[in-house]
Amino acid sequence: MLKLDFNSDLGENFGLYKLGDDTAVLSQISSANVACGFHAGDPQTIAATVRNAVANGVSVGAHPGFQDLQGFGRRAIQMSHGEIYNLTVYQVGAVKAFAEAAGSRLAHVKAHGALYNMAAKDLGMARALAEAVHDVDSSLVFFGLAGSELVRAGREAGLHVAEEVFADRSYQADGSLTPRGQPGAMITDVDTAISQVLRMVREGVVRSQQGVDVPVKADTLCIHGDQPGAATFARDIRAALIAEGIDIRPPQATYEYR
Amino acid sequence: MLKLDFNSDLGENFGLYKLGDDTAVLSQISSANVACGFHAGDPQTIAATVRNAVANGVSVGAHPGFQDLQGFGRRAIQMSHGEIYNLTVYQVGAVKAFAEAAGSRLAHVKAHGALYNMAAKDLGMARALAEAVHDVDSSLVFFGLAGSELVRAGREAGLHVAEEVFADRSYQADGSLTPRGQPGAMITDVDTAISQVLRMVREGVVRSQQGVDVPVKADTLCIHGDQPGAATFARDIRAALIAEGIDIRPPQATYEYR
Amino acid sequence: MLKLDFNSDLGENFGLYKLGDDTAVLSQISSANVACGFHAGDPQTIAATVRNAVANGVSVGAHPGFQDLQGFGRRAIQMSHGEIYNLTVYQVGAVKAFAEAAGSRLAHVKAHGALYNMAAKDLGMARALAEAVHDVDSSLVFFGLAGSELVRAGREAGLHVAEEVFADRSYQADGSLTPRGQPGAMITDVDTAISQVLRMVREGVVRSQQGVDVPVKADTLCIHGDQPGAATFARDIRAALIAEGIDIRPPQATYEYR
Amino acid sequence: MLKLDFNSDLGENFGLYKLGDDTAVLSQISSANVACGFHAGDPQTIAATVRNAVANGVSVGAHPGFQDLQGFGRRAIQMSHGEIYNLTVYQVGAVKAFAEAAGSRLAHVKAHGALYNMAAKDLGMARALAEAVHDVDSSLVFFGLAGSELVRAGREAGLHVAEEVFADRSYQADGSLTPRGQPGAMITDVDTAISQVLRMVREGVVRSQQGVDVPVKADTLCIHGDQPGAATFARDIRAALIAEGIDIRPPQATYEYR
Repeated sequence: MLKLDFNSDLGENFGLYKLGDDTAVLSQISSANVACGFHAGDPQTIAATVRNAVANGVSVGAHPGFQDLQGFGRRAIQMSHGEIYNLTVYQVGAVKAFAEAAGSRLAHVKAHGALYNMAAKDLGMARALAEAVHDVDSSLVFFGLAGSELVRAGREAGLHVAEEVFADRSYQADGSLTPRGQPGAMITDVDTAISQVLRMVREGVVRSQQGVDVPVKADTLCIHGDQPGAATFARDIRAALIAEGIDIRPPQATYEYR
Repeated sequence: MLKLDFNSDLGENFGLYKLGDDTAVLSQISSANVACGFHAGDPQTIAATVRNAVANGVSVGAHPGFQDLQGFGRRAIQMSHGEIYNLTVYQVGAVKAFAEAAGSRLAHVKAHGALYNMAAKDLGMARALAEAVHDVDSSLVFFGLAGSELVRAGREAGLHVAEEVFADRSYQADGSLTPRGQPGAMITDVDTAISQVLRMVREGVVRSQQGVDVPVKADTLCIHGDQPGAATFARDIRAALIAEGIDIRPPQATYEYR
Repeated sequence: MLKLDFNSDLGENFGLYKLGDDTAVLSQISSANVACGFHAGDPQTIAATVRNAVANGVSVGAHPGFQDLQGFGRRAIQMSHGEIYNLTVYQVGAVKAFAEAAGSRLAHVKAHGALYNMAAKDLGMARALAEAVHDVDSSLVFFGLAGSELVRAGREAGLHVAEEVFADRSYQADGSLTPRGQPGAMITDVDTAISQVLRMVREGVVRSQQGVDVPVKADTLCIHGDQPGAATFARDIRAALIAEGIDIRPPQATYEYR
Repeated sequence: MLKLDFNSDLGENFGLYKLGDDTAVLSQISSANVACGFHAGDPQTIAATVRNAVANGVSVGAHPGFQDLQGFGRRAIQMSHGEIYNLTVYQVGAVKAFAEAAGSRLAHVKAHGALYNMAAKDLGMARALAEAVHDVDSSLVFFGLAGSELVRAGREAGLHVAEEVFADRSYQADGSLTPRGQPGAMITDVDTAISQVLRMVREGVVRSQQGVDVPVKADTLCIHGDQPGAATFARDIRAALIAEGIDIRPPQATYEYR
């Protein structure tokens, strides 16, 4: 049976500040990436988010980022590989403790924002991330952009890797995402998005903007919950996949059962 | 065989800033309380400190405090019990991950500064701390001021508790420490200090300033490493205890072997 | 001619996080208390808020608070008077620079949250605040709860003081606000609120819950902008005051013209 | 009469953490660059440092940096020009208020660490810095690496500019510093250093590693106070310059008297 994980970034509140509608998103996804307090989130928010995910049967992951609350982890910060390893251990450990205190377990790790984007192209950074995750708990699933250095580093580190794909982004002939701002970078038509995801899951390819099919492994689909239209978009894709007999479940479940 | 743990606060550097001489202290102690990044420490410092402790055969503990780097966790901050529970889970989880990534395990938790002092007298706070520790890992040993609410809360939560005593402080008839600034609060004569510790370990009592013996359980002795004289003081006490046949070892070892 | 200042807390965004509808509030008020980056706000937010206030002809003030973004400056933090003096100089100086860079000037200072509430009752804290404001710029107007230690300390320091009153809170016979949570603490009927403010401005008294009139000096009225109902409430009070011939203007304008 | 300013970075303590020996350095310099609390320093430290500088007759400047206490402002952080403008206004304003509260005035601004190094080569960043300084107070002297984009941007903004030179670094034929790590980058012989500074002050040139003289304007000499040898080095250079009849004084004094 074909399977796909739906993941989304959650727990991005901070103190009095609210961001996103986690409760609406939780009903659509199978994996929650919980902000760890460095680029968003705080101990209160992590605790509530983890409990909420567990109560909804959604798998809990850590979502480490640069220590930059003001920039929401989206600004590049120059750090050594050792620093990246350690900030990853720290953040993964913190969220892991909340998962276990809630009677559950941490299932995966997905890097956030600039950390994710930089490591996707930089093998040294990707290795620092992957080795940190491995050293905290080698059973954690490591999420990374499909075909990127994150995937390579995760496999090298001996981790289960979930390759991440997008329904609302077009692809280039080399397998990379069309950069935002270029024509056709964003897919806004839901039927086009559904077709793209179905081909990725069933055939392991995506039709690039250049018109050629590119191989892509689709283990987990990124869902954005912070725009109103995105929720409907996600719901429609989810319904279409289920109608086509595809199972929406977290990747570690896949690994557990194989 | 009589036993006593020697514990000290370590890993208090931050970025370029250095505090204390951890390497000198590590040779004297059996348990290291590692700052968790809220009142002192950062991911780089925690990693190095944990590795250093493990290499020296010293047991690794987490040392959570208020989130107040500027005040070094010594300023009271008004927080709800829920907030204290969550800041404890967060910090304990972070250091636990470093212990495990270093191939070791987290052994104990001791609160820091204002958090420790306030919870020693406030059962609600003490319970928030103890329950957080229990929920992260119920095998962790919970350190608290001998006879205080921390000890009571730790036992209620089902944790192993190590009662903490002092060699350089005098006691009152009610078992409390003589407040700093009062005459005779500090014990500077090393022979007096050794006698006090020996009676606490052998007889389970301490002679109070009022001249009466007060029962006290001595599981772990607090060693201050940040003054030059303190290191010699600690070395002398340690040598005297060993000469008297007392075993210096971490409390969890005690529990493991009984 | 009778006058009253309307003040409100603005600039409480942080990075991506949004709080309050500053643009809606700016049309109602004469004085903006701009968060300084310690309990809320950041350099980007301060710059935009100051420009927005200046463009709307609203007087710019600094709104210093405890350094506690996570607790929004509402949690008591134990600090020495010297620390309070210095955190006030720092925050007032930062916002003053933005006012001057925008071609305007800083007009007033109002403490935030726990800092305001604690200093209203604690003369030592109030003096630390007032002396810091005086030492940065002795022409700044110092806002404080009417009749409180803030008012006393501001006058002692040689500052112009604006006594702050509330339209939506009832008063006790000793001139204090009825604590939140007690019956009748909040005034939700707009006509009752208007009557209370009119008597405070015209007669210098407020009818306490105990039924006796209490003297109160009303220089500036606190407007809360963060609830939808509060905006309408403020607009109605403002309209009623203008209809009664009361001039809505910042306190320094009052001082400048007398 | 020939003149030269001696400047050094001061006020780099944070909370309990100490860095550098400000008192020893203050007797050697004419301009103090005071850390503003973003990469080092805190309100207590700034207040004490400003008072100390004023008491020693040393001119007070602000030393803004990236908001990165853990990295000491030495890590590049990706920020927009608007963000750099605003972080500069904020930090300069904060230290300016302490200078004025101490009965003195702010005299200059020198950027710190990665902010300084990046802006020296990036005209857009340099302009954001210089315009922020100008908009806070157009009489402030703007310090920048001699011949760099900082100097160009400062002049464009209409600021007095002090070009900064080094006694302990060799220069390249294009006027840039020999990168650290390359042979001969550091000048450790004090007589060579004195000769280099004397030629820069008297003749406006420096002999490059390539053997050709390069024009350089020497308004202010950077003194490092954090190594023991550096203090002696600075003292010897200072004594030699005074013996040669060169006046050690802050650049704004130069401007005031011409």
